[in-house]
Amino acid sequence: MMIFKTIDWVNNKVRLIDQTQLPGRSHYLDIDNVDDMAEAICSLRVRGAPAIGIAAALGVVLAADQSIQENMELFLENVRNAMDVLGRTRPTAVNLFWALNRMEKVLDRIENLKPADIRERLLQEALEILNEDRRICYQLGAFGAELIPDPAHILTHCNAGGLATSEYGTALAVIYQAAEQGKKVEVFADETRPLLQGARLTSWELQTNHIDVTVLCDSAAAYLMQQGEIDCVIVGADRIAANGDVANKVGTYMLAVLAEKHQIPFYVAAPVSSFDLSVISGGEIPIEQRDRSEVATYMGKMTVPESVKVYNPAFDVTPNSLVKAIITEKGILRPPFHVSITNILQKNK
Amino acid sequence: MMIFKTIDWVNNKVRLIDQTQLPGRSHYLDIDNVDDMAEAICSLRVRGAPAIGIAAALGVVLAADQSIQENMELFLENVRNAMDVLGRTRPTAVNLFWALNRMEKVLDRIENLKPADIRERLLQEALEILNEDRRICYQLGAFGAELIPDPAHILTHCNAGGLATSEYGTALAVIYQAAEQGKKVEVFADETRPLLQGARLTSWELQTNHIDVTVLCDSAAAYLMQQGEIDCVIVGADRIAANGDVANKVGTYMLAVLAEKHQIPFYVAAPVSSFDLSVISGGEIPIEQRDRSEVATYMGKMTVPESVKVYNPAFDVTPNSLVKAIITEKGILRPPFHVSITNILQKNK
Repeated sequence: MMIFKTIDWVNNKVRLIDQTQLPGRSHYLDIDNVDDMAEAICSLRVRGAPAIGIAAALGVVLAADQSIQENMELFLENVRNAMDVLGRTRPTAVNLFWALNRMEKVLDRIENLKPADIRERLLQEALEILNEDRRICYQLGAFGAELIPDPAHILTHCNAGGLATSEYGTALAVIYQAAEQGKKVEVFADETRPLLQGARLTSWELQTNHIDVTVLCDSAAAYLMQQGEIDCVIVGADRIAANGDVANKVGTYMLAVLAEKHQIPFYVAAPVSSFDLSVISGGEIPIEQRDRSEVATYMGKMTVPESVKVYNPAFDVTPNSLVKAIITEKGILRPPFHVSITNILQKNK
Repeated sequence: MMIFKTIDWVNNKVRLIDQTQLPGRSHYLDIDNVDDMAEAICSLRVRGAPAIGIAAALGVVLAADQSIQENMELFLENVRNAMDVLGRTRPTAVNLFWALNRMEKVLDRIENLKPADIRERLLQEALEILNEDRRICYQLGAFGAELIPDPAHILTHCNAGGLATSEYGTALAVIYQAAEQGKKVEVFADETRPLLQGARLTSWELQTNHIDVTVLCDSAAAYLMQQGEIDCVIVGADRIAANGDVANKVGTYMLAVLAEKHQIPFYVAAPVSSFDLSVISGGEIPIEQRDRSEVATYMGKMTVPESVKVYNPAFDVTPNSLVKAIITEKGILRPPFHVSITNILQKNK
């Protein structure tokens, strides 16, 4: 369906579209070592919770390739070090740790294999994560599309689309499937400061896939809702606590409060891998603080005076009470979420 | 008190600091004709409701100067045409029309005066508007400072400071006076997309005047409130309806909803000239829609794909129910505002 490939394994390298260059340039990077992969994740060349998980898993394979000529001890040490490096790139999205954990489990079952065989198993697991993600996003979209009225004016934030996953996306998968079902869908995309993922990525992706889209400043969403222009809000998630509190791109909590005020349903779309039962409530989720330069400069030009402080959290936490439903590949979860999340995860085993 | 001059009358020209160049460059423009003044208002070289009123009034004087050698009929025609041109620059801030109305009344009392004498009376009136504004802002700040706790973490939006008025500002006048009284004041300034008046202007102005300030993305304000970091919100106003509904920079309504959710007092600071009793409620206030390029490009670089639509309202309307108090130069108004506003305007006559 998608006209672009977010991330793929091509000729023993990771090919990814450099999202910092969009929408001006569709530039693909071929990454062949783990340090470049860690840099690509840190600097948001690849971003979005599920895509980060895939990138990290494939990054482990690159590390294995780099050490494949070494003796077993050094090979394993280098692969495990690579996992540490990749695990330190971004703290909030749980899919990163979930994917690395799956790769780690491959190493636990190596028995008497040689490095080359271990590398094959790592690659199989990483490709399985990638392919699973594609199926999950498609299934999630099919469940979520039932929630979309016809016609629908849908507000979204950041990019929870094909660019944030292997394909289709999470929040945008719902929109794509509703549109495929013939529903008349109009999307309003928050530009999403400071890095403009909505302006640059969501609008580009939706337009590329022939979905009607309008970009607005994040602060204008309230006025749009007040005017009665929005039927529902759908966003993705970087991590969901056991009680259904949702960590997602900063501004998500703002939308959830505004949706409540205007009696607009607020939906979260995320794969089951975004749930983190080790975290009881959202307050325990680490929130990444990013560099002041993201807010204070633009295209190299200063927009905030040099010695002025900047507050730049990359994420916020939306309490479960503001979430109408969580759309997963296993079905639609309703409150009370501590029950529905537990049930779905048990079914998942 | 202020270290810069926002707008002044110097050598028969209007000197104003070009706010599109801040904070990078403190560049002053000397404007000597009404067309350049209209351009300066349209393109936000001078902005902020009270400052726009002053700029328009002085613009009328420039028009008089340009036609001072003409016969009386042509002189008056040109001056009235100039008023029309200035009145069409920006639709939302009522101070523009209020100031032009005062200049118009000067023309109603000209009797047998010559153009040169009329020009003197116009200049007197414009300078009176400017000097009045300075006194008004100072007085407004004194009243408002009583509302500020010690210490105080205050959130503000856009720029309702000295740069939006002749001096001191409205929302920021309250902050300056609270600080002068020795209160420990820390300001959080929304960057205010799309034109970054908070990032560029408010932070520059506060820092210049030695007030502690931190800039954040508009969408991060909700998270800051959720963390318990904000004691009150103070904003300015571009127009206030008879019932207390407030038109102000887009994003203000967002803050008002968020403040209500977090039980944080939401204050509006504005001179009495911002009230428009001809408008019964906020829904009647015209909301300026500005060009897509403000959102879709930055420093000449495209940030939204070319054919994607942009929704760019410059203002929004906050219903009176979300406003805890309106701070004016005549005192602090409390709900019900349709009563307190009528009372203050009668006292004002």
